[in-house]
Amino acid sequence: MPQPPSSAVATLVLDPAAVASSFREEIRREVATLAEPLVVAGFLTAEHGPSATYAEYTRKGCEDVGVRFDLRVVPRLEAESAIIAANGNPGVHGVLVYYPVFGTGQDAYLRDLVSPHKDIEGLNAAWARALYENRRFADDAQTKKAILPCTPLAIRKLLDAAGASVVENARPLAGKRVCIFNRSEVVGRPLASMMANDGAEVVSFDVDGPQLFTPAPADGAHDVHETTIDRAAALAQADIVITGVPSRDFPHVCAAEIRENAICLSFSTRKNFDDDIVGKAAVFVPRVGPMTVTMALRNAVRLYRDTH
Amino acid sequence: MPQPPSSAVATLVLDPAAVASSFREEIRREVATLAEPLVVAGFLTAEHGPSATYAEYTRKGCEDVGVRFDLRVVPRLEAESAIIAANGNPGVHGVLVYYPVFGTGQDAYLRDLVSPHKDIEGLNAAWARALYENRRFADDAQTKKAILPCTPLAIRKLLDAAGASVVENARPLAGKRVCIFNRSEVVGRPLASMMANDGAEVVSFDVDGPQLFTPAPADGAHDVHETTIDRAAALAQADIVITGVPSRDFPHVCAAEIRENAICLSFSTRKNFDDDIVGKAAVFVPRVGPMTVTMALRNAVRLYRDTH
Repeated sequence: MPQPPSSAVATLVLDPAAVASSFREEIRREVATLAEPLVVAGFLTAEHGPSATYAEYTRKGCEDVGVRFDLRVVPRLEAESAIIAANGNPGVHGVLVYYPVFGTGQDAYLRDLVSPHKDIEGLNAAWARALYENRRFADDAQTKKAILPCTPLAIRKLLDAAGASVVENARPLAGKRVCIFNRSEVVGRPLASMMANDGAEVVSFDVDGPQLFTPAPADGAHDVHETTIDRAAALAQADIVITGVPSRDFPHVCAAEIRENAICLSFSTRKNFDDDIVGKAAVFVPRVGPMTVTMALRNAVRLYRDTH
Repeated sequence: MPQPPSSAVATLVLDPAAVASSFREEIRREVATLAEPLVVAGFLTAEHGPSATYAEYTRKGCEDVGVRFDLRVVPRLEAESAIIAANGNPGVHGVLVYYPVFGTGQDAYLRDLVSPHKDIEGLNAAWARALYENRRFADDAQTKKAILPCTPLAIRKLLDAAGASVVENARPLAGKRVCIFNRSEVVGRPLASMMANDGAEVVSFDVDGPQLFTPAPADGAHDVHETTIDRAAALAQADIVITGVPSRDFPHVCAAEIRENAICLSFSTRKNFDDDIVGKAAVFVPRVGPMTVTMALRNAVRLYRDTH
């Protein structure tokens, strides 16, 4: 006899703008206390398309919290000298580059070119290394918090808002199983690392195959291992499912694959989840965008304070 | 009436091993003067394949000049901690990583993880930046020469041996036109930059399209511009043609495309030139391998001297 369908879960579809707005309130208060107007320079190499749209979001986000946003459209071959000039310009406190600029390994060169002290996106190799080693502070006196990459940080905060964490815990994701589809250097890998540092066990999928990020011990960093776990098994055990796959060929994650009451989040520019997860997931976060800008601004305030 | 074929050029096919051997003699003498045996640690993540073969070349190159080569086969996910340990180990003077490790952006992370003081491959972002800004020294007193990436440096030295440069000139490639097929962050882009810093005009092709590297002024760095020049026009004017295209789809550069007496060099793992260039080119350098190892060892000696 077929099992009766379990009663549908009342899935909360979480609007990132709502979560962002409470963070923005705090940032607005902090910006108002600074000795001078906070200035963020944005470098955009394409006047149209997703980057230009994202730059418009940034402008609104900046205006909303009282930050001066100086957006410059530059030819891609001038991005390098523009970044170097901004690094050396004391009137610029934060730098934001709209990637892709070249869409090749040259973008990693640009990311590393941004001064770590103005790197509000947190994409510099210096910050990446602090994250992978689970160093939470930039200084030995532990007065300056290490900067986290803004999109993974945005996702982490949205998961907190979705109830994924035991917030007061030193390892707020202890015991959680996570499945992430994306292992890029700018989102998927740092995110997996961040969540494993917070106590989760993370299966990370990419075209390159799966990797297993095991929880950090109380006094150290997470570890990464090869694994043979497949999509079905990883999804069947995941408390949290995160997708960021820009490919048309990625089969949508559907209700039959996930656990009841899983938390699902997509940061992809394409649809990655089937509509039927609403009714099975506990929470679905369909996008991250507004939180990314907010976290970049939060980083901007921190970096300003730490260097002034 | 068809033109009679021009009399065939007697093309010199240059063996990189022969050029390498004179550099090795100099390195051997310098190694012998150091206070302690020079130790290079190599990290290999695949026991077979091209990287393993290249590691064997490295071993022979090290033995040849009296350098101790400590090759370690490590799982790819342990490369990171192995590099960090080598950075902190005073008994290791040079670090060499056999890429690809992951074959993704994560490899750039590993390249930047190698301490610049032990980075005998010269692939660190700090050295890359010195090159792009045409800073030839690592210190203000100009006592320590900046480290150059070993494969582009190997190519540069082979071109010198092929008679491409006016060696005593401050801009030894002034007036030369160069065409490079490859703009990777590890070879093609630094090579184009290096040659433009030496006075050449370089057209750089990649899947991403062409870019024009214009000669550095007497007191500055080269510049890079978008260009619409196509393969045929770039080849027709090139004094020097360099290829590094690992794709089966790349049409071989053939005699009809190049200038008589051009210098042709391939650093590709695949055939990139048609056999008929022999008879039209002045010099053909069919491979670079032995020179790359030699230049890494030359960097090792420099880095040891600069830090001890």
